[in-house]
Amino acid sequence: MVYVVEMDVHIPETWSEEKLADITAKEKECSQKWQSSGKWKHLWRVAGRFSNISVLEVDSPEELHQIISSLPLFPYMNIKVTSICKHPNAIRQTLL
Amino acid sequence: MVYVVEMDVHIPETWSEEKLADITAKEKECSQKWQSSGKWKHLWRVAGRFSNISVLEVDSPEELHQIISSLPLFPYMNIKVTSICKHPNAIRQTLL
Amino acid sequence: MVYVVEMDVHIPETWSEEKLADITAKEKECSQKWQSSGKWKHLWRVAGRFSNISVLEVDSPEELHQIISSLPLFPYMNIKVTSICKHPNAIRQTLL
Amino acid sequence: MVYVVEMDVHIPETWSEEKLADITAKEKECSQKWQSSGKWKHLWRVAGRFSNISVLEVDSPEELHQIISSLPLFPYMNIKVTSICKHPNAIRQTLL
Amino acid sequence: MVYVVEMDVHIPETWSEEKLADITAKEKECSQKWQSSGKWKHLWRVAGRFSNISVLEVDSPEELHQIISSLPLFPYMNIKVTSICKHPNAIRQTLL
Amino acid sequence: MVYVVEMDVHIPETWSEEKLADITAKEKECSQKWQSSGKWKHLWRVAGRFSNISVLEVDSPEELHQIISSLPLFPYMNIKVTSICKHPNAIRQTLL
Amino acid sequence: MVYVVEMDVHIPETWSEEKLADITAKEKECSQKWQSSGKWKHLWRVAGRFSNISVLEVDSPEELHQIISSLPLFPYMNIKVTSICKHPNAIRQTLL
Amino acid sequence: MVYVVEMDVHIPETWSEEKLADITAKEKECSQKWQSSGKWKHLWRVAGRFSNISVLEVDSPEELHQIISSLPLFPYMNIKVTSICKHPNAIRQTLL
Amino acid sequence: MVYVVEMDVHIPETWSEEKLADITAKEKECSQKWQSSGKWKHLWRVAGRFSNISVLEVDSPEELHQIISSLPLFPYMNIKVTSICKHPNAIRQTLL
Amino acid sequence: MVYVVEMDVHIPETWSEEKLADITAKEKECSQKWQSSGKWKHLWRVAGRFSNISVLEVDSPEELHQIISSLPLFPYMNIKVTSICKHPNAIRQTLL
Repeated sequence: MVYVVEMDVHIPETWSEEKLADITAKEKECSQKWQSSGKWKHLWRVAGRFSNISVLEVDSPEELHQIISSLPLFPYMNIKVTSICKHPNAIRQTLL
Repeated sequence: MVYVVEMDVHIPETWSEEKLADITAKEKECSQKWQSSGKWKHLWRVAGRFSNISVLEVDSPEELHQIISSLPLFPYMNIKVTSICKHPNAIRQTLL
Repeated sequence: MVYVVEMDVHIPETWSEEKLADITAKEKECSQKWQSSGKWKHLWRVAGRFSNISVLEVDSPEELHQIISSLPLFPYMNIKVTSICKHPNAIRQTLL
Repeated sequence: MVYVVEMDVHIPETWSEEKLADITAKEKECSQKWQSSGKWKHLWRVAGRFSNISVLEVDSPEELHQIISSLPLFPYMNIKVTSICKHPNAIRQTLL
Repeated sequence: MVYVVEMDVHIPETWSEEKLADITAKEKECSQKWQSSGKWKHLWRVAGRFSNISVLEVDSPEELHQIISSLPLFPYMNIKVTSICKHPNAIRQTLL
Repeated sequence: MVYVVEMDVHIPETWSEEKLADITAKEKECSQKWQSSGKWKHLWRVAGRFSNISVLEVDSPEELHQIISSLPLFPYMNIKVTSICKHPNAIRQTLL
Repeated sequence: MVYVVEMDVHIPETWSEEKLADITAKEKECSQKWQSSGKWKHLWRVAGRFSNISVLEVDSPEELHQIISSLPLFPYMNIKVTSICKHPNAIRQTLL
Repeated sequence: MVYVVEMDVHIPETWSEEKLADITAKEKECSQKWQSSGKWKHLWRVAGRFSNISVLEVDSPEELHQIISSLPLFPYMNIKVTSICKHPNAIRQTLL
Repeated sequence: MVYVVEMDVHIPETWSEEKLADITAKEKECSQKWQSSGKWKHLWRVAGRFSNISVLEVDSPEELHQIISSLPLFPYMNIKVTSICKHPNAIRQTLL
Repeated sequence: MVYVVEMDVHIPETWSEEKLADITAKEKECSQKWQSSGKWKHLWRVAGRFSNISVLEVDSPEELHQIISSLPLFPYMNIKVTSICKHPNAIRQTLL
């Protein structure tokens, strides 16, 4: 099953530059681990905003939550989750 | 350049079933023409809603508008357009 | 997989009482067919509003869309879809 | 009487990891006490978000408030409360 | 149990003056029947708006829905329902 | 003149438990003083939320502001003020 | 007592030009009657929008509602009502 | 003085294709007259939406309203008006 | 030219009482300076909220910004600016 | 390609005046560098608000993001990005 997830990041104002750099590095490592696993299919930057739009193919809603909630910035993001399926007008036989 | 476009359809209440069927057929034909052209990369149904999330790769903002505004339901959709680019944490070298 | 779906109905003002009665009857028949199938687990009325909150257990997002979009009032509802999963604090072993 | 309650958690940015772990543990203990009492019927995680959707069966609005406001994270949650009742199209004779 | 209900009326533009006068008269009759029954405790006009704020004391959520949905303008109102209970700082021993 | 006022409390995350307890006690004392004066007619808890709905009968908008702004939590509340008057369909001759 | 009222007009699409012209003329006559009475102190056009911001000084909330609801376009306007009073920093001794 | 104006068009569903074509032609004529006058500096299409962002330099708010309200689609547009001025960080000495 | 400006104040939670008292005093001094200058025509308190509605008559948008941004609480206010002009139905020949 | 970008600044309440002055100076330097490069065509202050509306002409969405995200206040701004193109009614042959 495939989800489109939009994440808006809100960096806490009290974080030091060191803490921000540290968490940003861990965030990168974490998201790349999931991309490498083949679950996190697309990670796109929204041009001009501290946001991303992602496409994930997972085995279950539980797995989607496991991936997203493992991100160090998870508690500081505003997240919109959309469950998608095949459109009757789509000419592709698969979603991805 | 790549855009993510979310379209929510609001069917006019005064349309007859014939008119709705006719426009729906033209909508399908139109969207499939653009998918076949290779510009409209993904057309996903939002599960449970009269909405789609689409991914288009176009040469210019003008071309994006040409495609979306050619849809017969264009005047009756609420549309959100997001311009995307490569995310620094993405492991794929290309957007699509 | 389980979804919580909230549907707000907006009755078209140009419908005659006959048309409204006819579609309401078909809506009832349709929703009861899906409840009888075991897919539509809960159908709750929001007290004081022309809305319902429903819980559906389906095999795929496609099936969720098939069910919701088969409702005669589907084009006239504002629909919010939420994909749910097991909560770490839940003491029940199953969602339903 | 039955309520559907949606809770979005906003973790204060100034909390230490120890404080967060401590309050999270107390939150779990508190919510499980109410689940064991039979009042808190369902506790579902919203997939991909720091939110839950819950279903509670209580004797009164006072009791609903007693339960929700006893949660340690209560002051830091955005909460939507919906009072539900039997839907005329429902085939089940009871809400739960 | 007591509810505060805010109702915003949206008069359909296609109604004739006769139809509007007829439904308005029936709306008055209906709301006064419920007020006389002692269930609909307060019916207040929001100054300057086509809206009311009402306070109802009912035996169940089902009864609240029965009352509100019996109003002829029910399908054309935007309705907000709030379930209330005793406030710890209140000096009155009863809600009404 | 009568106002319906809805107040949503947002407790500052940096307050110690002592400060919160202290201000909560002062809040109670302040609101009860105004209730005893006969100006603050109803103080209802919104079930499941850190909010109240209140009904105040005052001599002027100035007096309403004097009362609400004297609450210690005033700067930390999101407040909605509604001026109400007699509804043409109301059977009671007075608002309260 | 003084209110600031913002009114956004939504012209029904099914009105003929004659009906629109007729109601617009009556709207003008009605609003000018109230301005001449001295109750409707200011009537300002929002530049670039089909909206006005008005300032009314009335004897009661009932009188405010009597004035606003007498406008022929009243059912087709989205209206925001704000009750105002003297600001502690104001150097004028009166509101108007 | 300079304004940025965003206009979202909502085509009435009951208009015939002839009426829509007629009003669209008049809309074009009207907007081009104002562009030729030098008042309407920029008229940009929002890519993928039935919206425009415009920049107008006018002598007064009255003139802005005269221009925008002369558009045949004025009653059917949702309009956002922003008054702009020189930014302290701008290196250009003029706004346009 | 005349603007209606609505300002909602959000007091930072980390400010000491001394800092708040100091800035409040400077805010009063600043707003009274502009009122005395004749530019800031009306300063009204929104009854029951930490907000004001103001009317300013200025020579340019630059001057409006100079005045509003000189307020010490400027960075902590949510501000809505509306440019107004003469309404065709107004019987007064001037805005103020 | 051309974007219209609206940026609303939210100054962190815990910043000292020195830090704010330092970052404001760097913000100015950064934005002026991009203006001098010819990419950042317009930088307009929204009159009365801590916001700007900007117009940028860039080679790609990536370049837009590079510019906007290089601003020191980037993590503390709420940003709206709009991709624009030629309007069919525009008489200018170019966007800028």
